[in-house]
Amino acid sequence: MHATPLLERLIQAFRCLPGVGPKTAQRMAFFLLQREREKGKHLAEILNHAMVNIRHCLQCRTFSETELCKLCASPNRDPSLLCIIENPTDLIAVEQMGTYRGRYFVLLGHLSPLDGIGPEDIGIKELNILINANPIKEIILATNPTVEGEATAHYLSEFIKPYNIKVTRIAHGVPLGGELEYIDSGTIARSFAGRETVD
Amino acid sequence: MHATPLLERLIQAFRCLPGVGPKTAQRMAFFLLQREREKGKHLAEILNHAMVNIRHCLQCRTFSETELCKLCASPNRDPSLLCIIENPTDLIAVEQMGTYRGRYFVLLGHLSPLDGIGPEDIGIKELNILINANPIKEIILATNPTVEGEATAHYLSEFIKPYNIKVTRIAHGVPLGGELEYIDSGTIARSFAGRETVD
Repeated sequence: MHATPLLERLIQAFRCLPGVGPKTAQRMAFFLLQREREKGKHLAEILNHAMVNIRHCLQCRTFSETELCKLCASPNRDPSLLCIIENPTDLIAVEQMGTYRGRYFVLLGHLSPLDGIGPEDIGIKELNILINANPIKEIILATNPTVEGEATAHYLSEFIKPYNIKVTRIAHGVPLGGELEYIDSGTIARSFAGRETVD
Repeated sequence: MHATPLLERLIQAFRCLPGVGPKTAQRMAFFLLQREREKGKHLAEILNHAMVNIRHCLQCRTFSETELCKLCASPNRDPSLLCIIENPTDLIAVEQMGTYRGRYFVLLGHLSPLDGIGPEDIGIKELNILINANPIKEIILATNPTVEGEATAHYLSEFIKPYNIKVTRIAHGVPLGGELEYIDSGTIARSFAGRETVD
């Protein structure tokens, strides 16, 4: 590399982005310097602003610039229905479905004892407060169908048991458009176990 | 999208990076917010600093924080040999070869009359000054083997003619490791036209 020291630091800094290796980082740095300095400055400004000012909703823990996020503050969302998800991106995925009208609780991860991630880290205290403060009738566990996600769902269902709230888990099976031939046997086993009567 | 306004602006801002579409931009924003805030702030700081402070070398026009870049300021580079390239990234590519000991001149583009890019834009004035101020014996035209690159090389060779300096063009042909079967006929034609006697 015969870049200037600052340019080398910029290329190195771009590597904090997911999926960005040395070649891509170099391309990004040169591209902005050569053609899009104003947009580069704009990105720097927004990025700093976002890193400093985007916090978590005090109730559901998703990203928010205000104490309560838009969804928690909205009077149009059903407070008797709560969906528990791992990450803010999962919230966006569920919202894109367009039919869920309840509220959310974001764990910001999943239980992972080996990495030292316990109940406190997934916000069990905040979940407790939320459950006590709202007339919740059903909690949908929508953690990912991974080993950690399943373990977290199991832990949460045990945790919620004393409240006498209906706890459900999202269905697992063959995704729409999927072909059996290419789907792992674990998923097929789940789709058989969860089979429904055809009317 | 149910992101906060600032988060949406951040996702939008990431799209100024080359090869970053809406999905990747979203992934970058959430990744930094969730796991790498400090690195995100660091990137913002370096990015702004770089956009503001990285200018061009007054002599060769590559990126530089100082008036003269490291290569132009170095007493170890042969001032009688000049390599003309299109972009600062080309300079890095040539330097990686490790055997070139001359100096460079960066056009920062190529002639493109349709886009209004003329001789002034590729630094013909600066090139003139550089040629007059240095004991140059050979100029290597290393613009890309594209239509515009070839046209630019042709223009430059005409421009340099009055100076009685030897002008050379990098060889074009089948790249090392390339297979004839997969190489375009234009390149094969160049490799035939430029064939050399085997000793």
